[in-house]
Amino acid sequence: MEAYMSSIGSKLQMLNTSDHASVVSMNLFVALLCGCIVIGHLLEETRWMNESITALTIGVCTGIVILLISGGKSSRLLVFSEDLFFIYLLPPIIFNAGFQVKKKQFFRNFMTIMLFGAVGTLICCAIITTGLEFRGNLMFESFPSAPLIMGNAWMNAQALLPYVFSLIDGAVQIFKKMDIGPLDIGDYLAIGAIFAATDSVCTLQVLSQDDTPLLYSLVFGEGVVNDATSVVLFNAIQSFDLTNINAVIAWEFVRNFLYLFITSTLLGVLTGLVSAYIIKKLYFGRHSTDREVALMILMAYLSYILAELFYLSGILTVFFCGIVMSHYTWHNVTESSRITTKHAFATLSFVAEIFIFLYVGMDALDIEKWKFVSDSPGTSVAVSSILLGLVMVGRAAFVFPLSFLSNLSKKSPNEKISFRQQFIIWWAGLMRGAVSMALAYNKFTSAGHTNLRANAIMITSTITVVLFSTVVFGLMTKPLISLLLPHPKDQSRSLSFSSDPTTPKSFTLPLLGEGQDSLDDLGGHEIPRPSSLRALLTTPAHTVHYYWRKFDNAFMRPMFGGRGFVPFVPGSPTERNPQNQWH
Amino acid sequence: MEAYMSSIGSKLQMLNTSDHASVVSMNLFVALLCGCIVIGHLLEETRWMNESITALTIGVCTGIVILLISGGKSSRLLVFSEDLFFIYLLPPIIFNAGFQVKKKQFFRNFMTIMLFGAVGTLICCAIITTGLEFRGNLMFESFPSAPLIMGNAWMNAQALLPYVFSLIDGAVQIFKKMDIGPLDIGDYLAIGAIFAATDSVCTLQVLSQDDTPLLYSLVFGEGVVNDATSVVLFNAIQSFDLTNINAVIAWEFVRNFLYLFITSTLLGVLTGLVSAYIIKKLYFGRHSTDREVALMILMAYLSYILAELFYLSGILTVFFCGIVMSHYTWHNVTESSRITTKHAFATLSFVAEIFIFLYVGMDALDIEKWKFVSDSPGTSVAVSSILLGLVMVGRAAFVFPLSFLSNLSKKSPNEKISFRQQFIIWWAGLMRGAVSMALAYNKFTSAGHTNLRANAIMITSTITVVLFSTVVFGLMTKPLISLLLPHPKDQSRSLSFSSDPTTPKSFTLPLLGEGQDSLDDLGGHEIPRPSSLRALLTTPAHTVHYYWRKFDNAFMRPMFGGRGFVPFVPGSPTERNPQNQWH
Repeated sequence: MEAYMSSIGSKLQMLNTSDHASVVSMNLFVALLCGCIVIGHLLEETRWMNESITALTIGVCTGIVILLISGGKSSRLLVFSEDLFFIYLLPPIIFNAGFQVKKKQFFRNFMTIMLFGAVGTLICCAIITTGLEFRGNLMFESFPSAPLIMGNAWMNAQALLPYVFSLIDGAVQIFKKMDIGPLDIGDYLAIGAIFAATDSVCTLQVLSQDDTPLLYSLVFGEGVVNDATSVVLFNAIQSFDLTNINAVIAWEFVRNFLYLFITSTLLGVLTGLVSAYIIKKLYFGRHSTDREVALMILMAYLSYILAELFYLSGILTVFFCGIVMSHYTWHNVTESSRITTKHAFATLSFVAEIFIFLYVGMDALDIEKWKFVSDSPGTSVAVSSILLGLVMVGRAAFVFPLSFLSNLSKKSPNEKISFRQQFIIWWAGLMRGAVSMALAYNKFTSAGHTNLRANAIMITSTITVVLFSTVVFGLMTKPLISLLLPHPKDQSRSLSFSSDPTTPKSFTLPLLGEGQDSLDDLGGHEIPRPSSLRALLTTPAHTVHYYWRKFDNAFMRPMFGGRGFVPFVPGSPTERNPQNQWH
Repeated sequence: MEAYMSSIGSKLQMLNTSDHASVVSMNLFVALLCGCIVIGHLLEETRWMNESITALTIGVCTGIVILLISGGKSSRLLVFSEDLFFIYLLPPIIFNAGFQVKKKQFFRNFMTIMLFGAVGTLICCAIITTGLEFRGNLMFESFPSAPLIMGNAWMNAQALLPYVFSLIDGAVQIFKKMDIGPLDIGDYLAIGAIFAATDSVCTLQVLSQDDTPLLYSLVFGEGVVNDATSVVLFNAIQSFDLTNINAVIAWEFVRNFLYLFITSTLLGVLTGLVSAYIIKKLYFGRHSTDREVALMILMAYLSYILAELFYLSGILTVFFCGIVMSHYTWHNVTESSRITTKHAFATLSFVAEIFIFLYVGMDALDIEKWKFVSDSPGTSVAVSSILLGLVMVGRAAFVFPLSFLSNLSKKSPNEKISFRQQFIIWWAGLMRGAVSMALAYNKFTSAGHTNLRANAIMITSTITVVLFSTVVFGLMTKPLISLLLPHPKDQSRSLSFSSDPTTPKSFTLPLLGEGQDSLDDLGGHEIPRPSSLRALLTTPAHTVHYYWRKFDNAFMRPMFGGRGFVPFVPGSPTERNPQNQWH
């Protein structure tokens, strides 16, 4: 009987999955996801923790337990896969971000976001690369003060970071005594791109859209553009001919970036509009909420993989698809579909985020990579410290100057980004996450494995930087914000909204209370027409918005639906009282 | 520039997926899914079509187009994977079925469902195997009439199927002239199990829970139990020692089956109760609808893979988990979560169903399998016809006798299953679908490929049977039901509910109008107590239900929540008016 049963067992196993070990892994992983949700819920009241840190901690603890059980052989449940991350986990997170973002805030700060996201990322990458290269080149020529000279230029602007430089100084001293292996200029540039990728996922969990809308939209918007820039940059560097970097190639790069940005955005907008048109024309709610929801999910995902098909930036595409869907498509569906999509997208994104952090935590202890480092633990610590220092310097090097530039273009002092806010923007973008991990794996491993000492050290350093920045910086963010912005609610709101004297009071007030896309509440109301051409020059954002609303109401909404442009069908059972339906 | 761009492209491709061809496939597949939804929506008004047939047709058409484009090399976008099917596509479908099933109907007909699902499947498998074996053994001994002799016994009961036997007769005549290759007794038994698996997915789309509740619950319930039985049977056969089948092994098999059934059910119930308890105790709605939804989805999936971990039947487990979750957990969450889960589960199930049929349609034209058949097209047609005939006979062989047995135990003539209903039950279970495909692939291929002639013929025959039964029988089901049950709404309702004179009118009436789990609406109402022990014997279903309700109200609901047992929290923002929240 025993043998018979186990034989059936092995057949069942063969039938259902190729490997029983993978079933065990999946069980443990799903159970851990449930555990993260429950523990995250219980810890929510404390001001220090957030779901990312909980998941990361649980991941590391599980890694330790697995390491002990397996006798030091393995700490991983699943092999880290860039495909899994880029194809399944990232799209729902970015789409949901676009779907739930406060569109008005986002577009009002569009120029600043682009400045931070695109130009800033390039600056950050350049600084990290230069810092590493200086270190690499000068290390053996006994110029240990070179990174410090470079550092000093920034220290004038940055009185807060002297300890970072003493850390770097110390690390460089250690570095002089050892050799981490062969790394060429291409590797340094790639490392620059890898560590220029901030972690928008973690940031989203730390900053609150309701409490600090300006900061949220700036940091989050930057994160999305930054992700795209980093990936484009990384790929450009991988294919760069490094022997002749000249103006022509630089110009090609800029053109390529602009092309990617514009086409990706247009593709996302187009897919969103097509979904709105189909659902409006065919009126899916007539029969089935499920069809509407399925179509929205599938079209959103289609936009992402279409971008991949055309070698565009899927992240940007799916983000703009989310914005268009929440502006048009979402208003064309039934009440039940609205509630379902809103929460289903948020849930998908939430689970994907926890999944990523849990995984990164577990992967951190993978023994294979650490065995190269175990004989010289100082090396990894030193490299990680240098990278962390360069990340901080690199970010400071664009946040403060670009904020200064952005402030120059603002007239009202309330619209400007205060120094405290600049500091928070700088801080919130210091965390490195799954994008950095995925890029590092792509660069320094093949199929998750590496045998080169230099590569193993870069992987372990990346893991260290990701863990340290997420946990330590992440833990400090909430207290830091409440310290720097004692009443963030009032302060940030007054900063972002009460600026323009031409905006009447009745216009801004409803904006503050409601969630999602509040300006659209005004439906049929007339927006005051800008009085003159001078208004266009002095308050360009409002003027652009005024003409966009006119265009939206005259052409877009009648065509694609949207608030106030969907005919009410009395027979539709789900339209009126969705909660009664389920009683 | 051109080269530079394409180089970036190839890197991006490398980064994001291992193969650009797979991105193309995914795009096409997602686009086809969208197309199926839109076309299915447009065709919904016609009485012949349903979503399964639409998806299957689109799949076959796409297969033809791909075949033409690739010059006859391939018709597949993705390789059929049992893992994909059993691990990702089947669980949401079965879970949703449990979540949305009318529990009262299901449990009232529990014994009949078990009779059909378990005993019936065994009979069907035995008949198909015997039929094939007779054919196989007698073919060369010139006893072509053997299956007809066996068939004649059933023809007395079944005046409707004479043409089937003439088909079989004809096919056997053809068969005598050719050799399909070496198949042993184990193969015949496996084929019996493969073709005993009805397709509950297709059935669900054809029958309506509201119009024909008795038929729906019988056919659907049978489908779930049948899926589990087929898989268990298939695995048992694979590990059978075929040289000594005796009473001991048969008893072991029965014990094993009962063990699987009971433990799988208990595991599903337990997981469902744990989810209800966690959500009730911790009151997740306090902060986040997303957490509740995520936890419900993850716990449901956990129940499935836990069953796989313990070598149980995941299908049964996740089905009962769905029932428990809809009875307890669903009432513990916020209003938004209820709407979200209801529709999200239905959507997931809907997409998975379309995915399966689209895939099966596309896979049907895979050239690799057909090349073995192309030199003798008659063989495949003959084998398919024989199988189809045996499927029809095998199903008739248990539906009519078991319905007779089931009717014997019912007193009221209204409670009995009429001959017309028996015919529809027989008909609705004739369709073979993805479970048969997955089992056939498991048996006759390794990793989706086969080089043996006999195996290739069995695969192509399976595909033919699946396509033919789904399309032809599926197309005829709706007209057939309206022909046989001219007013299905009134008739079936009166059949299933108005039977018991002890049930007061006020008791049954609310049951008819509402959807989901209507009996529980009675909340505080008293259920009339059965007057005596004699009542337990005469109306066992109602008596069992009475004591279950007492137990449920006294112990289960206070512990695990459920309708009327969740404290109202006035501060909860999502509890009162979910639709206002989104305005």
